[in-house]
Amino acid sequence: MGAVITLTTDFGTADPYVAAMKGMILGINPDARLVDISHSIEPQNIPQAAYILSTAHEFFPQRTIHLAVVDPGVGTARKAVILRTPEADFVAPDNGLLSYVIESYARPPFTGNSARLDTTRVEAVHITNPAFWRPGVSATFHGRDIFAPVAAHLSLGIPPAEFGEAIDTLSVLPSAKPRREPDGTLVGQILHIDHFGNLITNIRNTDLPGDYENLVIVVRGKEINGLVTTYAAAEGLCALIGSSDYLEIALKNSDAADFTGASIGDEVKISVRV
Amino acid sequence: MGAVITLTTDFGTADPYVAAMKGMILGINPDARLVDISHSIEPQNIPQAAYILSTAHEFFPQRTIHLAVVDPGVGTARKAVILRTPEADFVAPDNGLLSYVIESYARPPFTGNSARLDTTRVEAVHITNPAFWRPGVSATFHGRDIFAPVAAHLSLGIPPAEFGEAIDTLSVLPSAKPRREPDGTLVGQILHIDHFGNLITNIRNTDLPGDYENLVIVVRGKEINGLVTTYAAAEGLCALIGSSDYLEIALKNSDAADFTGASIGDEVKISVRV
Amino acid sequence: MGAVITLTTDFGTADPYVAAMKGMILGINPDARLVDISHSIEPQNIPQAAYILSTAHEFFPQRTIHLAVVDPGVGTARKAVILRTPEADFVAPDNGLLSYVIESYARPPFTGNSARLDTTRVEAVHITNPAFWRPGVSATFHGRDIFAPVAAHLSLGIPPAEFGEAIDTLSVLPSAKPRREPDGTLVGQILHIDHFGNLITNIRNTDLPGDYENLVIVVRGKEINGLVTTYAAAEGLCALIGSSDYLEIALKNSDAADFTGASIGDEVKISVRV
Repeated sequence: MGAVITLTTDFGTADPYVAAMKGMILGINPDARLVDISHSIEPQNIPQAAYILSTAHEFFPQRTIHLAVVDPGVGTARKAVILRTPEADFVAPDNGLLSYVIESYARPPFTGNSARLDTTRVEAVHITNPAFWRPGVSATFHGRDIFAPVAAHLSLGIPPAEFGEAIDTLSVLPSAKPRREPDGTLVGQILHIDHFGNLITNIRNTDLPGDYENLVIVVRGKEINGLVTTYAAAEGLCALIGSSDYLEIALKNSDAADFTGASIGDEVKISVRV
Repeated sequence: MGAVITLTTDFGTADPYVAAMKGMILGINPDARLVDISHSIEPQNIPQAAYILSTAHEFFPQRTIHLAVVDPGVGTARKAVILRTPEADFVAPDNGLLSYVIESYARPPFTGNSARLDTTRVEAVHITNPAFWRPGVSATFHGRDIFAPVAAHLSLGIPPAEFGEAIDTLSVLPSAKPRREPDGTLVGQILHIDHFGNLITNIRNTDLPGDYENLVIVVRGKEINGLVTTYAAAEGLCALIGSSDYLEIALKNSDAADFTGASIGDEVKISVRV
Repeated sequence: MGAVITLTTDFGTADPYVAAMKGMILGINPDARLVDISHSIEPQNIPQAAYILSTAHEFFPQRTIHLAVVDPGVGTARKAVILRTPEADFVAPDNGLLSYVIESYARPPFTGNSARLDTTRVEAVHITNPAFWRPGVSATFHGRDIFAPVAAHLSLGIPPAEFGEAIDTLSVLPSAKPRREPDGTLVGQILHIDHFGNLITNIRNTDLPGDYENLVIVVRGKEINGLVTTYAAAEGLCALIGSSDYLEIALKNSDAADFTGASIGDEVKISVRV
């Protein structure tokens, strides 16, 4: 069995772009096993892609190679990079796509638009060696011409260092962690709306006080009292800890996004009933 | 070559949910061959999923494992089950998803919301053994935490009996077979509308009198005379026996659903011209 | 590792049709490696499918088998064919789907609705031997019953000649090459609009004068001056040579189709500034 290579892009599946990447990979490593994570990232939406990648990669086998191409800066000076962690390899443009993946490998201080890596635990490489690219690289489709061939060559066991120069910082997205108000209210925001209309927030299980029954959650003027543990347990709008440990707002057998009118970026406020 | 595992869900393909299931499977059986049947089942639409699964599974190789997760009751008392037939294995929540698959393996009487199985021909198991689940099962995503790992372990050759207790009944959907009126008219309904806008009914080839030329089909007030054998043979709205032996209504090079305004559940009446 | 078989259809991915084809293939060749090119071709849109196939196939490994089923004439007299080129095999209805693929293998004169093939370089076969079909072929789903089984048998190494009779012509689409007006203006049209809203024209790099800076491109009354080399390099509406060497019109980080109101078939005029 060959290495697993996942693909995450904003290319959609109607055009021949994803297939061209897969064809390039299979030409280099005919044994590669290709798995789509998502090709429905909103065009150029790097934060959404970073979130989707972060909640999928952990379920893949050790040493999976994750290829992520949401790349509005294609053809400009933005770097193409490889990140090797103890679990997996990532191949992506250096534009914030790996923000969540590197969270546990970054050195303080955690400010600004780049993160210093703990290079005793992870290895990062700026991809500069054209030996592993498609001959005649286009200026507009590095997914096919650089990222896919690099991922395929990595899957053959070529060490990251052969693809370019070691680096010790990567770009990160401006922090979107929940903030705490003076009165103790926790204020987060909606990070993603899934296919069922569930509103997934940037508030993690570990951000919440343990007293789930007495939490009051407010989104778009609607108040929810306490958390439930399953979608089926609730009547009406409910809040629960989703399958990736983020707080989400759901509506039993229906669509919470339609019902509340909420959009990505909207605030979600949490307080404790006294 | 590894076992074939198919996936049918209402998860869509934009979110990381399907990929998380695939990652879990490949971590357990790296040789599994994954094939998507559909992830575009309407959210929580069990009848539609049962239909799609029933018209796809028969074209797969012997001993394919079909994983189907449309699961509005996730986290509640609804059972998770394995069904082993002479042809294939099915892993699904016990909520009616396997209604069509078990039709030929059920014992009379055929009434109510559950079917007694002919256990001399099929084996059914209530999945209760957590040894084959993801450690730390969530309450909201059994597709990833129970169904996918169970399917993957099954594909390694572990016998169904090791996953839990033998059972001899499964849930079925309320019957939606066509009925016959006193004047002989056959009344069915629209079960599914496909991507081309073809209206697929619950009337099978074997329900019809053989005299195809003299049939009169009425849907949404529009009358169709006789059946055609190919989409291209007709002018205007036509009726034919589709590729899964169900009667369907089509419009040559166009969309019968748009043209007639028909929806899933609408009646289709059939009589014989005298 | 098994042969790569790609699939291009207008079936969508919600229905069980694509899965049925894949199931049939894996039943015949369990080692086949299946890659989707696109299932989002507009229903019955042969020109779009021909374009998508032509811009994807070249990136696949040698001897890939490309299965393409956009088949409004299913069940009628239109032929089912195999085309073997020095690079790959194609299995498709003979309705123009292979128009672009055979461009470099056709003999003059290039007129009318069919092309004579240079049979010293390519081999074409009219599929007539039912030994390689699904028993009990339906009249409405040759993708599952003929094309998929034929592709699977081809992938096992069975020579094309065993599938039917050699032929030396294939159907082609009416030419949609750009024309030149008396004043030297080049007039092309929009061939495809991709997921990003980029307008892809039928004007190739080689049709253009080399003086990119002085080109004036007009689409839907909007004028663009000169070409850029990357999507990121432009402000506002821009034109560039896309990744498959066709001229495309794009809007940085946005949707050129929405912005211009352009549709497939609209004219694009190019002149040189004096």
